[in-house]
Formats: sequence, structure tokens, C-alpha cells
Amino acid sequence: MKNRKILLTEKEIPEKWYNIIHDMPNKPLPPLHPGTKEPIGPEALAPLFPMELIKQEVATEKWIEIPEEVRDAYKLWRPTPMFRAYELEKMLDTPAKIYYKYEGVSPSGSHKPNTAIAQAYYNRQEGVKRITTETGAGQWGSALSFACQHFGIECEVYMVKISYNQKPYRKIMMNTWGAKVYASPTNLTEAGRKILAEAPDSPGSLGIAISEAVERAATDDNTKYALGSVLNHVLMHQTVIGQEAVIQMEKAGDLPDIVVAPFGGGSNFAGISFPFLRLNLEEGKNIRCIASEPASCPKLTRGVFRYDFGDTVGMTPLLPMYTLGHTFVPAPIHAGGLRYHGAGVVVSQLLKDKLIEAVAHDQVECFDAGVKFARAEGIIPAPETNHAIATAIREAEKCKEEGVGRTILIHLCGHGHFDLGAYENYFSGNLEKHEITSEEIEAALARIDTPVIE
Amino acid sequence: MKNRKILLTEKEIPEKWYNIIHDMPNKPLPPLHPGTKEPIGPEALAPLFPMELIKQEVATEKWIEIPEEVRDAYKLWRPTPMFRAYELEKMLDTPAKIYYKYEGVSPSGSHKPNTAIAQAYYNRQEGVKRITTETGAGQWGSALSFACQHFGIECEVYMVKISYNQKPYRKIMMNTWGAKVYASPTNLTEAGRKILAEAPDSPGSLGIAISEAVERAATDDNTKYALGSVLNHVLMHQTVIGQEAVIQMEKAGDLPDIVVAPFGGGSNFAGISFPFLRLNLEEGKNIRCIASEPASCPKLTRGVFRYDFGDTVGMTPLLPMYTLGHTFVPAPIHAGGLRYHGAGVVVSQLLKDKLIEAVAHDQVECFDAGVKFARAEGIIPAPETNHAIATAIREAEKCKEEGVGRTILIHLCGHGHFDLGAYENYFSGNLEKHEITSEEIEAALARIDTPVIE
Repeated sequence: MKNRKILLTEKEIPEKWYNIIHDMPNKPLPPLHPGTKEPIGPEALAPLFPMELIKQEVATEKWIEIPEEVRDAYKLWRPTPMFRAYELEKMLDTPAKIYYKYEGVSPSGSHKPNTAIAQAYYNRQEGVKRITTETGAGQWGSALSFACQHFGIECEVYMVKISYNQKPYRKIMMNTWGAKVYASPTNLTEAGRKILAEAPDSPGSLGIAISEAVERAATDDNTKYALGSVLNHVLMHQTVIGQEAVIQMEKAGDLPDIVVAPFGGGSNFAGISFPFLRLNLEEGKNIRCIASEPASCPKLTRGVFRYDFGDTVGMTPLLPMYTLGHTFVPAPIHAGGLRYHGAGVVVSQLLKDKLIEAVAHDQVECFDAGVKFARAEGIIPAPETNHAIATAIREAEKCKEEGVGRTILIHLCGHGHFDLGAYENYFSGNLEKHEITSEEIEAALARIDTPVIE
Repeated sequence: MKNRKILLTEKEIPEKWYNIIHDMPNKPLPPLHPGTKEPIGPEALAPLFPMELIKQEVATEKWIEIPEEVRDAYKLWRPTPMFRAYELEKMLDTPAKIYYKYEGVSPSGSHKPNTAIAQAYYNRQEGVKRITTETGAGQWGSALSFACQHFGIECEVYMVKISYNQKPYRKIMMNTWGAKVYASPTNLTEAGRKILAEAPDSPGSLGIAISEAVERAATDDNTKYALGSVLNHVLMHQTVIGQEAVIQMEKAGDLPDIVVAPFGGGSNFAGISFPFLRLNLEEGKNIRCIASEPASCPKLTRGVFRYDFGDTVGMTPLLPMYTLGHTFVPAPIHAGGLRYHGAGVVVSQLLKDKLIEAVAHDQVECFDAGVKFARAEGIIPAPETNHAIATAIREAEKCKEEGVGRTILIHLCGHGHFDLGAYENYFSGNLEKHEITSEEIEAALARIDTPVIE
């Protein structure tokens, strides 16, 4: 009987985060000031983030030491298991070997705590009393609540009001870890009050929630802000996933031909793929790293590479990214974590340089894939995760057609325990594909008025 | 930095189930025919269960081989991790060493698949096409759905109608694994039609759902029935938990003074404790095994030991058990899995012989304990699980008072991802203690009219 799992010991939790910027042939372009359009330095971030995270944001050294206390907290769920997906291979009748790295074992059920724990730690080190953040579906808010509880910091989450009302379980989860959760827009901030004055029944939006969380941090000396994806330091914290996966693949006596991960802002994809890209960059390996995005929000496959705002309202620095435009409103797909108009700077540069690939799937294909996976392997994946599974199944079917047994590694970044309403939707035949027409894409891109990259 | 987890490899998944009956000083009394009150043999079970499970139900040998295919399926989540609860110890400021064995990593989130997989396997071996069962809150129905999917058997779950409507996520989980889930009472059975004729709006009950599932199995040659607790073979299948835990405690260089587990019908408690009781019985160890039950359903601490029916309506054989009477209706506590009037035969005999202990907790104490645990260790436990945590915290506080550092092992049998509504209830101060008065207990016991045990 063969082993299904490849496990590591706590000693094998990585001691350093991998900073891929060091190895990139073309470094990311600098962020620009939203007013002057001139490059800005790290000092612009000081009101919002602790110094150590700002240093990491602009770091160019290859490895950054993970503090002992962070590694100790990681042990609450890390190292995470890797599985050989024998049952899925059998179901697909494919010569491909399929593995998955499972981050759903973390307390909040996804990869998000890898950076939440690190961010909470550095804030506490610098005497910060309170961290604010926004959350949509609730994955990131849950992870930060858990992390703040662990390090004894207050956590204030601005949750988009419509999600607050529709997904009470995520809110209660955050409460269980001691966080205060507010339905945004609130009366607690200028930004919130302004919205409420104009639209008392506003359902809120991620853009508004960001404004509220940022305002709270900017106007209180004891309070900082935390972001769950997009930024360089966030992507880097996630590389513990891929570093473990590299060791696990070695222990399995294998090396992936293909690594697939869902793509929202980039931290999920970066987490698993950057340590494999290192093998490409350093050792000339040829591992294909594929980002799986929703067909309804195809910034990587159908967007443009240019400067754009990170937020909807245009308050952040301008970042060089693949984008559909910061005013683009993605269709209401169930994979809420992937409904973001842009892509992190580092991942964008890598795609520009053809060092990574991207594909898009409509959500019906994704849920087809997720249900297949659940029936074969047992685990019910999050809607975001289903995108990577859909890509893996396409590749496994290609292997079958071509009679070639490639090795595929899936980033199984989270479970779907809080997303079963989406599965119900799928089973009842009410799931929309939410594809997007060329005209809609063109119209969205035409609206972008931020600087072009030559 | 110390390790938090004690992990095992797949090679260390137990090869045999432990049958404690072999080692019991007083063997369990025989079941009686509900009509004649005469002892009945295993043949009475033939319409409902496959032969191999009936053999296990009456087996007296000490060890029963686990089939290779069952062990292979176990690998989808086993061995389960054991954790040293350093953060909880710190929070309680106790000299006690606290460990927990975590079964929430299984696909359905509890220990239930340990027996579901075994039962589905034996049914498939004997050519059974369909398995029926009942479910209340949904833990058992989910586990059996997953197991039937794995072995390619149809699964039909009769889910109590009020739960079906109130807990749609559990139903969707079962659908995801391919099961058919019916809101009981249904029009598909005589039993269901009879109830609906009398009460078209019946919210259903576990008693009715059992009647429907049993009728379907009894009247169709290709269909059998499965039960998730109480019976000897079910308890025995769960001993994989405790066998792993014995090895893990050895690897930690420790031995528990106290093992605690929640108590519903007995399979949860048996699973972790029987392999430690074996050390008591064989090697003269003195490990206290404590069953934690709800104060609202205190069959072990305030019930009587006598013959009683396993079900509410009185269709099953009469079993020698600790009971509050088969017509006892427990208060609607959130720990739905512990709302059972009686206790499995083997566990009852062990308690009668003072080889195990029992304590009761009201549900407010349990949620207090569960929230402490979640804030310390990250994992949000199921309401059932919180009972064991409450006992562990009491014992850890006793250690502090006495200045003695005992070792406590908690059976963390499941996560609370589908029970956050109960936590919300707790946080909002709306949780009732649901204690029970002496008069209520006396009245319940006075209603029992089944044979007394001399």
C-alpha cells in the first residue's frame, strides 16, 4: 500500500522567507505618487505599517529570517501536509501524477494566516495596540483576528455590510478570536459617515471598507493597518508554503512539471510558486507555474500591464500591474477572494517577462472540478481553490490525450466549509458562468486613465 | 523551541481494532427480545447489517484485523495529529500538561468516518447497493455519505426535518459527496406516511428518522442500514484513535493521568479511552478515563443501569445500559450529538464496574471552555467537543490548586465550523444552561417500564 501523504516535522518549517525580487531578471518598477506621478519611497507607508514590514516591502536581499516566535506560532498548523491525489488520478484515468499541498488545516481554513501571524508579530514588536483591516467574504479578516489574538493585539475588522449580513458565520469566527467586526460603512470614520449621509442603506464595498480601515490607522498613533495580499511583503510571507512543498516533492522522489494556484491579488499563487520559480531561475529547471483566474475577472489573461491604483477609489500609490482598471467591477462570482481588478507588482512583472503563465476558467467549470475533487479525495475545496483544480484537470486530461505522464502540483489553499451555499447553487443548476465579452473588456480598459508603461 | 505536534506516519495507522470485551472482568449482558424479553442472538440483526459487522458485534476475540482497503481509505486523513496545548496551559497558568488528539482533520470534520469507512467497506464486500441511515445535526450523515462515495455505494440519509431546514450546510455537504438527503418524515416509507397523515407539519425527530431508515433497509434486499454509535462494532472501529494516541503519548515521553472525551452514545469516548483502559487492565496502569456529558442529559451521572430500548419508539432489542428512559426528551442544547437518552452497552458495563468515570457540565460552562480553547490553540471546537474541554479545564485548575502537574489528554473529536450559530448565541448572552432538576430526573426514571437488572 502506497502512502498518500508526505509530512514534514516542525523542524522543517522554513527558517527564512524567500524574496524572489533578488532573482528577478527585471526588477519591479517603482510605485508612483498618485498626485505627482513621481516615484515614491517607503516613508510614504509609515503611517500605516510598522517599520519592519516597510523594510521588507522594499527589501532586495534573497532571504529574510523568520523570527522564532513566528515559527513557533506557525507550529499551530504548519508544516501543512502534501497529498498524492491517487483517487483523483483514478477518477480521471490519467497518466498524470497529481499532488496537492493543503493549507486548509490552518485554524481559519486557508493560507492567509501565514502572513497574518507575521504581520501581527511585527506590529506587536513595535508596540502597536490595534490593527485594522477590511474583509469581504471573510477569509482575510478571520486570519488576522486569529493572529492578533495570538499576539495579544486588538483587531478591528471592517466587513462589507452585505457580506456581514449574508455570511454571519465568518463574523462569528472573528468574534470567537476576540476581534471587533463592524458592518461597513460605519459611523466610526469620516469616510463611513460621508457614505452614510449620501446613502444610508449602502450595502458597502471593499473600496469603502479599505477607506475606513486605513483612516482609522492613519488617525490613531496606536493603530496600524494590515493588507492580506498584493504587497511584496505579503507575497513573501506566503513562500513558506512553496518551500515546504519543494522539500515534500523531493521526499516523494518527484519534481512537478506544472504548479497551479488560484489567482486573486497574488499571495496565494506566489506562496506556492516562487520557491519553484527559484529552481527555474537558479538551476535552469523548467517548471511551468500557472495562475488560475476567473473568466469574469481576467486581468492576467485579458488585462493590460500599466500603472493603476490598488484600490477602487484611487487613494493608494500607483502600482505597475496587470489590471482591468481600478473601476472595474467583477461579476458576483462565489470565489470572492479572486474578485480583484489588478495583480501584485512582482507577479505582474514575472508574467510580463513570460516566467509564469495564466489561464482563466468560468465558475461552472470550477465547481465541476471542485465536486470531482471532493468525491475523489474527500476534502471540499473553497470556490477560489476550485480554479486551480480546474486547471489541473485540464492539464491531466491533456496528459491522457498525449499519453504523457506529467507531474502536477495543486495549491489546495483552503476548504469550502463556509461556502456550501455556493455548492448548493451549483447543484440546483443556478450557477451562472459569468463570462465577459470582448466589448466589456475593451470598455473597461478604455476607462483607465493612469500612466502607461513604455 | 519545543514541538507542538506529535505526528505519526501512515505505516503507524493501526492494523487491528481493539475489542475491549475480551478484557472486561464482567462481560456485557445479552440483549433481550422486545416482545418475549428473552435473550436474542445475532441472527436478529441480519436484515439490517452485513454478516461481517454482525460477527464483529458479538465478537469476543481481543483484536480484529482492519482490512487493507479500509486502512488505505483511512490514509485520506489518518493518522490524526496530537498536539501539546502549550497555549492553553499558559492561559490557565496550570502545572498540568495538556495534550489533545484532533479528529477534526477528517473530510467531514469529526471522528465519525472511522466507522463509516469500515461499515461502507463491509457492505460493499457483501454486494450491498445502498445504505440508509438517519441523521440529526448531520455529523453522522456526512461521514457516511463520504464513506459511501469512496466505496461506490448509494447513500440515503433521513435527516430530521427541522435540522434539514435549519442546517442546510450539512445537507449540501452530503449532496457534495453524492448522497440523497430526505427531510424526514417523508412519503417514501410507511412510517413516514403514517406520521404525515396524522401531522402533515411534523418537524420530525430522530426516532421517526430511524424508523424510516430501518424500514427502507428491512424491505429492500439490496439495502442495509448503518448506525453511527452505541453498538459494539461501532465503538470498536473508533479504537484506531486511542491506539494512535497511545503511540503518540509514548513518543512524547509521557503517559496521561487523565483521558477525557465527550459522551453521546459512547463511540467518541470509546475511541480514545479503550486503548488506554487496556493499559489499566493489562499492565495495571491507573489512567482515569472520564466521560463528559451534558448536565441536561445526564444518563451516566444521574441515570439508572437497566434494560432499555435503544430508540425512542421501542422497536430495537432491549439493551443493558445507563439510561434516563427511552422516552426522555433532552433539552435542545447545541451539542446535538450528545442528546441521547442511553449509553452503549460496553461503556455502561465499564461504568457499572467503576472502571471509568463520568462528569456533567451545563452548556454555558462548555462554551466558556470552547472559547478559551479557540483563543489559545486556534481551533474552534464543536459544541460536543467543548464538554471534554470543560472537564479538562476543571482538572487543570485542580492541578493548580493542588500544585500537582498531572498529564491530561483531551479527545478533540471535531471542529465547530458548522456550529458557529451556537457560538453567536453564547456571545450574545442568549445561551441557556439547561440544567435539570432532581424532580425531572425522578419523573423520567419513574416512567421506565423495561426490565430491571438485578
